[in-house]
Amino acid sequence: MAKFEVHVIIENKPGISDPEGATILKDLVLKGSYKSVSQIRTAKMLKFIITEKSKQSAQKKIQELCDELRIYNPMVSKTTIKVFDA
Amino acid sequence: MAKFEVHVIIENKPGISDPEGATILKDLVLKGSYKSVSQIRTAKMLKFIITEKSKQSAQKKIQELCDELRIYNPMVSKTTIKVFDA
Repeated sequence: MAKFEVHVIIENKPGISDPEGATILKDLVLKGSYKSVSQIRTAKMLKFIITEKSKQSAQKKIQELCDELRIYNPMVSKTTIKVFDA
Repeated sequence: MAKFEVHVIIENKPGISDPEGATILKDLVLKGSYKSVSQIRTAKMLKFIITEKSKQSAQKKIQELCDELRIYNPMVSKTTIKVFDA
């Protein structure tokens, strides 16, 4: 058994607007004269420390956890899961 | 000039507690019988699309933007910046 750090990124699906990112872009970044920025999207991230047999089983367990405990809303959000050695 | 995707992860400094992550762990994950999880920390993420000469200048510009516009509070938070080809 080994410890893994698992990052879960939860963000709106590409077709769904992100008013928070749009507001940061329009009212903060562009007003601050950073004209080379063309888009901002916000996301939520959870970092798990988990003890499992392998990277694969860590990934599978966290995917199952997120789905079963409804960590995110699958109607509007998508998740990306990345596993690292802890 | 090329487009880059820049990910900025904003999280509490290691010594500063994260009640949101602690609550998800204690009242959701451990009650849901995922006993192999030992820690959860939450973070905020911003994904920028920026047009710059190089990865280095994209990273530098976003670092400057985050510091100057006070995107995060340097007293309690730390940031991690990663640059990808868009």
